[in-house]
Amino acid sequence: MIATNGGQESGTRRIETFSDGVFAIAITLLIIDIGVPHVGESGSLFVELVHLWPSYLGYVVSFLVIGTVWANHHNRFRLISRSDQYLLFLNTLFLMCVAFIPFPTALLSEYIREDAHRTTAVAVYSGTLAVTGVLIALIWFYAVTNYRLIDRSVDPSLLPAMTRRYVFGMLSFILAFALAFVSPAASLALIVILVLLFVLPEPVGSRHARGTRRRSVGG
Amino acid sequence: MIATNGGQESGTRRIETFSDGVFAIAITLLIIDIGVPHVGESGSLFVELVHLWPSYLGYVVSFLVIGTVWANHHNRFRLISRSDQYLLFLNTLFLMCVAFIPFPTALLSEYIREDAHRTTAVAVYSGTLAVTGVLIALIWFYAVTNYRLIDRSVDPSLLPAMTRRYVFGMLSFILAFALAFVSPAASLALIVILVLLFVLPEPVGSRHARGTRRRSVGG
Amino acid sequence: MIATNGGQESGTRRIETFSDGVFAIAITLLIIDIGVPHVGESGSLFVELVHLWPSYLGYVVSFLVIGTVWANHHNRFRLISRSDQYLLFLNTLFLMCVAFIPFPTALLSEYIREDAHRTTAVAVYSGTLAVTGVLIALIWFYAVTNYRLIDRSVDPSLLPAMTRRYVFGMLSFILAFALAFVSPAASLALIVILVLLFVLPEPVGSRHARGTRRRSVGG
Amino acid sequence: MIATNGGQESGTRRIETFSDGVFAIAITLLIIDIGVPHVGESGSLFVELVHLWPSYLGYVVSFLVIGTVWANHHNRFRLISRSDQYLLFLNTLFLMCVAFIPFPTALLSEYIREDAHRTTAVAVYSGTLAVTGVLIALIWFYAVTNYRLIDRSVDPSLLPAMTRRYVFGMLSFILAFALAFVSPAASLALIVILVLLFVLPEPVGSRHARGTRRRSVGG
Repeated sequence: MIATNGGQESGTRRIETFSDGVFAIAITLLIIDIGVPHVGESGSLFVELVHLWPSYLGYVVSFLVIGTVWANHHNRFRLISRSDQYLLFLNTLFLMCVAFIPFPTALLSEYIREDAHRTTAVAVYSGTLAVTGVLIALIWFYAVTNYRLIDRSVDPSLLPAMTRRYVFGMLSFILAFALAFVSPAASLALIVILVLLFVLPEPVGSRHARGTRRRSVGG
Repeated sequence: MIATNGGQESGTRRIETFSDGVFAIAITLLIIDIGVPHVGESGSLFVELVHLWPSYLGYVVSFLVIGTVWANHHNRFRLISRSDQYLLFLNTLFLMCVAFIPFPTALLSEYIREDAHRTTAVAVYSGTLAVTGVLIALIWFYAVTNYRLIDRSVDPSLLPAMTRRYVFGMLSFILAFALAFVSPAASLALIVILVLLFVLPEPVGSRHARGTRRRSVGG
Repeated sequence: MIATNGGQESGTRRIETFSDGVFAIAITLLIIDIGVPHVGESGSLFVELVHLWPSYLGYVVSFLVIGTVWANHHNRFRLISRSDQYLLFLNTLFLMCVAFIPFPTALLSEYIREDAHRTTAVAVYSGTLAVTGVLIALIWFYAVTNYRLIDRSVDPSLLPAMTRRYVFGMLSFILAFALAFVSPAASLALIVILVLLFVLPEPVGSRHARGTRRRSVGG
Repeated sequence: MIATNGGQESGTRRIETFSDGVFAIAITLLIIDIGVPHVGESGSLFVELVHLWPSYLGYVVSFLVIGTVWANHHNRFRLISRSDQYLLFLNTLFLMCVAFIPFPTALLSEYIREDAHRTTAVAVYSGTLAVTGVLIALIWFYAVTNYRLIDRSVDPSLLPAMTRRYVFGMLSFILAFALAFVSPAASLALIVILVLLFVLPEPVGSRHARGTRRRSVGG
């Protein structure tokens, strides 16, 4: 009797639109933390610009992180076809982490060159990503348990592989956080490796709109 | 004779898209009010970061507030299937409040620790939410009166329960505003409770795209 | 032979999405020009906040202006069903004006209290709106001439009334610009009146998704 | 067996939505680099505003650049109907360049008047556009090779003309970068000319939703 505008499809459409907006803004806001350097007539603008390398590094790493997290969110909501109060709430907490990323990025760019503060800056940065990773995993666990919000036509054999992937991702980012206290450089290197790893195809070839029907991947 | 791109569905689609954009930007802009702390070689970045707790508090509360208001707006426009000039105008006033929220949030973060200014800061914050609550209720009252803009297939017995919910929400936020002058802490606590309350399912289980048909809830 | 994703509907869909994004961001960015006032222990935060009234005025007026321009753009693209290079270019110039509005708004808020600079500030503000009005009209003229981009099912008798409305709007904003040099207050008052006027229903009742079919309005 | 929400159409829909968001934000953020000038009672606000001309120039040129790049991206994804991991990654790198543009724009506005730093500022600006142009071309080359991600109903005779256009665009922006070291003014002029050139219709009249069927353009 309730008319849901557009039927089943609207189940997650506006969550996705809203989330896409937050992703797009968080990723684009990264640039406003790179301030134009001030240099006099006798100085070299080129030298000053080179000196800003930690800002570029933070911009590139965080852009890749948010872009990858977006792609993951994007793929996940191709399997999640319904939403409820709790998914909305978990998704809001998750977006709170994503929208927070520009802050630890600015922190990282500011303090990565200072021995006294590098550990703290990298720990806050990797800690933010670890919490984000936990929330991504929670969204998946909540949605997948008993097919609660998953499209019922999804092949069940695919789900354990995806769940393992989420557990792996979550634990890896927690490891990166722990590593920050031992070696900040190693922590950042692990983050970059993880981001590039997640660019690789998922166990499910679900990104191809065609040609994946009935292609079941052994879990 | 007038061609409305895509027929009835476009009745509120672009309002929703535009509103989602404003929500997404307002919620993401909250982060730019948390500035990177400046700390010398001898200071502790960790201590400085802990000292920023009012900024994190403001970020978290306002993020939950805007997220909840968004979810409510989202649910409402699943029942509102048509739009007119006045709905557009009310919605613009409503968005004006939502987009304003980053300002009282920054005010709250700046002055919550100062006894002399805490009451003013909390009153402006809760007052903004009270006005927002009034506008949400006005949009609902305008749309629901005589089924003016409501989807005609919506079960009439559901509407009084929703109207009561809006009146309750509006009065609660007005109470939070009044409470700011007695106890700023109590006012903020009430706001957090209200936000968490609104995370609970609505009287109408309208968020489930499936399985809610014909499930009428006694008003 | 060319596949246009989704056929005729995609003719203007992504222009609308992109424009909605620019509108939503420009309107939400207005808030970042209202800075949190700094006040010592002995000062009054309330007094300082009241002192910011030109910022609130600028925020409210520009929010209504951008909101109204958005609503107009929204209604227009319900009649415009196709796009071409030149529409895209005109729309880009138009969005350039919309995205520019936060700058004259900040200027207005900063200088409205100063006799020496009020005229300049109001002239820049109303001048920006005048140029915006000219571009809105140009988009309409370009689209409507020979039904170039207009949905062919639109009743021809409606178009002259709309064209008159655009010419009226354009001339009114140009008048507001001229008036700034005589009386800045009158110029601002005219802008507010125009914005409220455009909230009134259009000659075409095209915003009602239902009930407007075959209701032809005498031009 | 995998359910992709909405089937083939969703192949690139969310990439487009996300990209549109980044474009819209990057283009609108350009305004926040134009600060309100401070002027005393005795000064002239008009003179100060005129003095800001490099900021307006940067705003207009970058707005046209991002608007044109958006229109190009928009047209491209009408031919690209599928997506995969690598397209997502290339698109993320591409968006990283687009979102970066406000920084070199601010640099250009700040230093275009200073002989000592003009070359560096223009080189960074045109260099950013050159890298963007390379990535646009890479996306096309990746998608078009063996019809990897192109809609199979696209007329094959159109593709070589488009590929030439991308090579031409890419080389032209690289030329603008090289020219910056010889004559910054010539570099900027070339950029403006290129932007206006790309406003001209494409070899494929694919923007017209109607009337272009079977109109094959000789490659």
